[in-house]
Amino acid sequence: MITVLAGGTGAAKFIRGLIEIIPQEEITIIGNTGDDVTVWGLHVSPDLDTIMYLLAGLLDEERGWGIKGDTFACLQAMGRYGEITWFQLGDRDLATHIERSKGLSRGSTLSDVMEHLCRSLNVWARLLPMSDQPVETRIRTPRGVLSFQEFFVRERWSSEVTGVAFQGSETAQPAPGVQEAIHASEGVVIAPSNPITSIGPILAVDGIRQALCETSAPVVAVSPIVGSQAVSGPAGKLMTACGHEVSAVGVAQIYRDFLDGLIIDESDVALGAEIERLGVCVVQADTIMRDWATKINLAKAVTSYLRIPDAS
Amino acid sequence: MITVLAGGTGAAKFIRGLIEIIPQEEITIIGNTGDDVTVWGLHVSPDLDTIMYLLAGLLDEERGWGIKGDTFACLQAMGRYGEITWFQLGDRDLATHIERSKGLSRGSTLSDVMEHLCRSLNVWARLLPMSDQPVETRIRTPRGVLSFQEFFVRERWSSEVTGVAFQGSETAQPAPGVQEAIHASEGVVIAPSNPITSIGPILAVDGIRQALCETSAPVVAVSPIVGSQAVSGPAGKLMTACGHEVSAVGVAQIYRDFLDGLIIDESDVALGAEIERLGVCVVQADTIMRDWATKINLAKAVTSYLRIPDAS
Repeated sequence: MITVLAGGTGAAKFIRGLIEIIPQEEITIIGNTGDDVTVWGLHVSPDLDTIMYLLAGLLDEERGWGIKGDTFACLQAMGRYGEITWFQLGDRDLATHIERSKGLSRGSTLSDVMEHLCRSLNVWARLLPMSDQPVETRIRTPRGVLSFQEFFVRERWSSEVTGVAFQGSETAQPAPGVQEAIHASEGVVIAPSNPITSIGPILAVDGIRQALCETSAPVVAVSPIVGSQAVSGPAGKLMTACGHEVSAVGVAQIYRDFLDGLIIDESDVALGAEIERLGVCVVQADTIMRDWATKINLAKAVTSYLRIPDAS
Repeated sequence: MITVLAGGTGAAKFIRGLIEIIPQEEITIIGNTGDDVTVWGLHVSPDLDTIMYLLAGLLDEERGWGIKGDTFACLQAMGRYGEITWFQLGDRDLATHIERSKGLSRGSTLSDVMEHLCRSLNVWARLLPMSDQPVETRIRTPRGVLSFQEFFVRERWSSEVTGVAFQGSETAQPAPGVQEAIHASEGVVIAPSNPITSIGPILAVDGIRQALCETSAPVVAVSPIVGSQAVSGPAGKLMTACGHEVSAVGVAQIYRDFLDGLIIDESDVALGAEIERLGVCVVQADTIMRDWATKINLAKAVTSYLRIPDAS
C-alpha cells in the first residue's frame, strides 16, 4: 500500500506513471479540496476530478484537466444566462458536478460522493478528499482576496500575491481513512504539486501533518521546482509570497518536519548537500515528465526509494 | 392583450402561429407546472421551457421539446453514474435547469426565475408559471401512482389510468400576474393542450378557474380532440379515465363553466349543435397544425373570434 498526497495536474502526471508500475488497488490518494469552487450553484472539486479522470482513463492529458473529447455546449448556453464562463466545465465533466451536488444536497459527505463517482467510473485506487468539511484557499492580493480559482483561472495567476490562507482549516477534520492510510502505508509520496496551494491545504487540516510526522512509513516528495522555477504554474510566485526560497531546498524546508526523502531534478545536483543538511535524503531523477518513459522512470525512482516492489 | 393557458407541445404549435399575427409583447402565457420534475437534483419545468424555447426561436419544432441541434453528452455521462436517462436533457437545455435550480435554491420564486431566463433569451411575451408553489400531477394506475413524466415519458403513457390528482393544488396560489392577466385581457385562449394534465393543473390552482368565470374577456378554447381521438398524446386516455367523453363535446363540458367559444375541427361539424346547447359558441377551423399555413390560420380563427385585430 502506498499513499499519495496530490493536487491536480502535476500530481496526475506523476500518478499516470505510478499506475503503470503499481496496481491501482494498492494506491490511496489524498486529494486537495482547497480549490473547490461553486460554479453555477454546483460543487466542483477540480483537483479530485483531475485525479479521478486520470485513474478512469478519461483525463484530457494534453490539457491536464477535464475529460478528453469533451464539448462545451452547456457552458455556451450558461453564458446567455449571464453566468461565468471563465471556469470551463465540459458537458461530460458537468455530469460529475451535477451528481456531486445532488449527493451533497441530500446529506452525503464528499467522501461518500467520491466513492460513488469513482466506483461508477471503474477507478480501483482509493481517492479520498483531504476533508469532508470545506477548507477554502484564499489568495491575498493588493486588490483584495481571491479564491484559488479566481486567482489561477480567471486572473491567470497574474495578480501580485501577498499571502495565502486556508479558511476553515482550523475546524476541518481529516476525511475518514486519511490518517489511517498515512499510518498504514508502506510509503507516503508528496506528489510534484504546488507546495503552497495544492499540498498546503492538505497539511493545514488538523491531524494530517501530525500523521505524516508520526507514521513509521517513509515519506518522500518529488520537487515541483527545478532550478529556481516551478515546472508549471504559480508555485514559484506563491512560495515567494509565503517567504520560501524557490528551489528544491525551499521545498525541503516546507516539508522538513516529516520528510525522509526528496526527489530532485538531475540538473539540481548542486543542491543535494544543502538539502541533506536539513536531514532529508536526496534522490536525483529526471523530474520533467515530458513523456511516457520519463513518467514511469520518475515513478520507479519513488518506489525504489520507498523499497516498494515494482509490479510492472 | 391576449392571455393563453398553455401546456407544452400542442400549445407551442398553436403559439407558433399566434406570434406571427400578434406581437409577443401583447401576449401573456400562463404555463402548466404540474409536469415539473426533479431530474438529477435539478428543477425541470418541461412545459414552461417548451414555450420559452418556442418564443426564443430555439425550440426543436420537429420533436416538440428541447433545443434544436442540442447534444446529449452530459446525459450519457449521467448514465455512467447510475442516474436516469429516460428523461432526455440536452446539453444546452441543461443550462436552463441549472440556472433555474440555482435561482430557486437561493430563494427566488419560479416566476422570478422565468422572468430572468426569458429576458436572457430575448423573449418578449410574458410567460408566467401558473403558481410559484409546487402542484404535482399524479397519475393513478393499477400498479401505483406515477408522476406525469414517469407516466408520459418513461412509460410512454402505456399504463392503464384510474385517476388523476393535482397534489398541492389545495394550497397553491396563482403566481403574481396570473389572475390580473385573465381579468385585464381582451381575450383568453385555452390552447389545444391536454384538458386533464396540461390545462387541468392550471384550473386546479385556487382562484384561476374563478378568474376565468368572472373575467369580462371572452374565453375561447381550441379543441385538442378531433373525432374521438386526441390529435397527439394521452389526452383521450386521460379524459376517459376521468369520466369524460373523448370528443370536442367532452372538451366543451370540461370547460363549460367559463367557456364562451370552442374552436372545433371542420371534420367535427356534426358536433356543433350539441356543443352550442351547452351555451358555447362553435367556430370551425382546420385544427390539425400540420404546417406553417394551418398554424397561422388557426391563430387567425381564434383572434377573429376574440375580435382582436391581426397585426401581421
